[in-house]
Amino acid sequence: MEDVVLEKVMEEVKKRLNQNTVDSSKAENAEIKREEKVMVSAVGLTEFVGTAVGDSVGLVIANVDSMLHEKMGIDKRFRSIGILGARTGAGPQIMAADEGVKATNTEIISVELARDTKGGAGHGSLIIFGAEDVSDARRAIEVSLKELNRTFGDVYSCDAGHLELQYTARASYAINKAFGAPVGKAFGLIVGAPAAIGVLMADTAVKTANVEIVSYASPSAGTAHSNEVIISVTGDSGAVRQAVIAAREVGMKVLKAMGQNPVSTTHPYI
Amino acid sequence: MEDVVLEKVMEEVKKRLNQNTVDSSKAENAEIKREEKVMVSAVGLTEFVGTAVGDSVGLVIANVDSMLHEKMGIDKRFRSIGILGARTGAGPQIMAADEGVKATNTEIISVELARDTKGGAGHGSLIIFGAEDVSDARRAIEVSLKELNRTFGDVYSCDAGHLELQYTARASYAINKAFGAPVGKAFGLIVGAPAAIGVLMADTAVKTANVEIVSYASPSAGTAHSNEVIISVTGDSGAVRQAVIAAREVGMKVLKAMGQNPVSTTHPYI
Amino acid sequence: MEDVVLEKVMEEVKKRLNQNTVDSSKAENAEIKREEKVMVSAVGLTEFVGTAVGDSVGLVIANVDSMLHEKMGIDKRFRSIGILGARTGAGPQIMAADEGVKATNTEIISVELARDTKGGAGHGSLIIFGAEDVSDARRAIEVSLKELNRTFGDVYSCDAGHLELQYTARASYAINKAFGAPVGKAFGLIVGAPAAIGVLMADTAVKTANVEIVSYASPSAGTAHSNEVIISVTGDSGAVRQAVIAAREVGMKVLKAMGQNPVSTTHPYI
Repeated sequence: MEDVVLEKVMEEVKKRLNQNTVDSSKAENAEIKREEKVMVSAVGLTEFVGTAVGDSVGLVIANVDSMLHEKMGIDKRFRSIGILGARTGAGPQIMAADEGVKATNTEIISVELARDTKGGAGHGSLIIFGAEDVSDARRAIEVSLKELNRTFGDVYSCDAGHLELQYTARASYAINKAFGAPVGKAFGLIVGAPAAIGVLMADTAVKTANVEIVSYASPSAGTAHSNEVIISVTGDSGAVRQAVIAAREVGMKVLKAMGQNPVSTTHPYI
Repeated sequence: MEDVVLEKVMEEVKKRLNQNTVDSSKAENAEIKREEKVMVSAVGLTEFVGTAVGDSVGLVIANVDSMLHEKMGIDKRFRSIGILGARTGAGPQIMAADEGVKATNTEIISVELARDTKGGAGHGSLIIFGAEDVSDARRAIEVSLKELNRTFGDVYSCDAGHLELQYTARASYAINKAFGAPVGKAFGLIVGAPAAIGVLMADTAVKTANVEIVSYASPSAGTAHSNEVIISVTGDSGAVRQAVIAAREVGMKVLKAMGQNPVSTTHPYI
Repeated sequence: MEDVVLEKVMEEVKKRLNQNTVDSSKAENAEIKREEKVMVSAVGLTEFVGTAVGDSVGLVIANVDSMLHEKMGIDKRFRSIGILGARTGAGPQIMAADEGVKATNTEIISVELARDTKGGAGHGSLIIFGAEDVSDARRAIEVSLKELNRTFGDVYSCDAGHLELQYTARASYAINKAFGAPVGKAFGLIVGAPAAIGVLMADTAVKTANVEIVSYASPSAGTAHSNEVIISVTGDSGAVRQAVIAAREVGMKVLKAMGQNPVSTTHPYI
């Protein structure tokens, strides 16, 4: 008899508890759903290409309206554009777009940083690809969305801040557009938030290996007032990799000393 | 007997569960309380006019201190100012202020955008009205606060972003100040976040009807680095309305394709 | 028998409820852990000095890499730097750094504001101290971290916004660097968020006592697009204090009229 009571009560309790947790699990489900939908066209919207981690979304416009074309300052060669935007992340999207531009007959028109990350310390982003044909724009967005899973691998987040590391043996035009890095050479990106951590990571990186600083950005210059210090480096591919890894290590140590446990957004690749 | 046990347990469980949900209901209660307090002066503070949705607050100063007057760059004609500020929203407040300025003997001194929305992708705002008499300033703020319930109607929010649509058949001086739109003509505002969505909404809007783009803003130009693309349009009132509605439709489709369910903050009016 | 049932059920319920609340208590524990760790060197990282409230972190670099040195625009006199950064707060860190610079043989190289506060309406910060010797830089950071507990005392937060008040009888070089205030004179800082509240606080402050406005900042000028109006004042120490207290009072009244209950981050000191 007690068991019956117990069961009845637990059922009721479960019902109530489920209502309570529905909000957080909704968020998780949304994330899963989003990921499943990558590369799947939304019904009735030919412009939709897909979504990816970081509330990233990829869109194309086959024939941009001429008035908007002019307002956006797009070169007249490009009838079609690819659009890659995200709430969370600029570095991962730039690195992904770099692969997109390598793989297709497109150019990077613009890379804009928003102050976002949904209450975090960093950036969201808006990257526009130009193409003469929409199929090229679509392909560039498809490649970029696919790459995001990898390029979020060395984004480590925790309550107090985040680290971001990126590395490529051969930078292309998206990286060049965003950071002014030389095309065809190895490239590394080092980000620490809060910005104080980024300063130490930058110092560690350049002391570790023979690399050259391409760009230095901080809350009041070169960022959209994000709470980050961001350096990008170039040089011999081995040296760049070594610098990036050393910066990651010291950044981790500081966040851990702050009582934090930074975790990769996906799976580390460097 | 089981029923007695059941009852006892459920009572205890309810008590515990209520404690758990008190935080979220507190937030809701605060919202309700705030809304009830609109147009009700706070005890002992003649400068307080009221509050509204979006953590909006309306204040007046009858006789601005001369030193502050100068630092704020206010025209000497205006002894009195009305102050409309908010954590969430710039478009809704500008549209509301437009009604405030139409209805009273005031002028818009300044419209400033903050990067806010409490972790969202958009703006907060600070709008200053100038008046020769404080009763005019107060009236302008009262009208504006009242309008906010309507002007938040086509603000659709979800976890991944938001859409905002605004429309008026006749723009006045707040809209003119904020966007440079012609006074007396129909005006539409189209906002998508993350910014990628705003690009597609903008393209759809101008392709749908014969409207003219008044302004184009993006994360790195014309916004406070919000994660939005914002266009404003003018033209024949029917065309403007049609453009706005088409933009809303495509924006909704993208957010839904991202696995989101954007909902109106109050009640749609367009 | 009922009691046994009751007990069994309650045990199960407690277990489930505890799982639910574990997330929020984790956050609190992290805060406590962070505070315990202040002034304790992290294992194996000589650059780490400590942490403090607001996700503040203090670091030193004994010998900044020459290439980074140049990119950061640091004067050649300073081999060593102290780094004070935070997710939440700029005023508290500037006031704390002012004590750090008073107490040591260091100089303030730069004060940068990020748009942060983890979804709040204000700033995070990055402050760099220069020193010829790393022991001086370390001491400056130690003093600053210790002061933060006090300087967060008149930071009052609530869901809708925050107030910040600061006062010192004698401003030093950090305050001078950040606000242009005269060194050696009394200094007051008055911040209200959303920005509308800051306008009223500013007006009240300067009407209350015979003080001079040193700086006025708002979302579109002088801030990193935070949703704040910030004024700093100087003058006779009694007058400055009186102005700050009057501003606090009116700010509190507005937030309370908005249905809020702003609470001090630590313990009020003014």
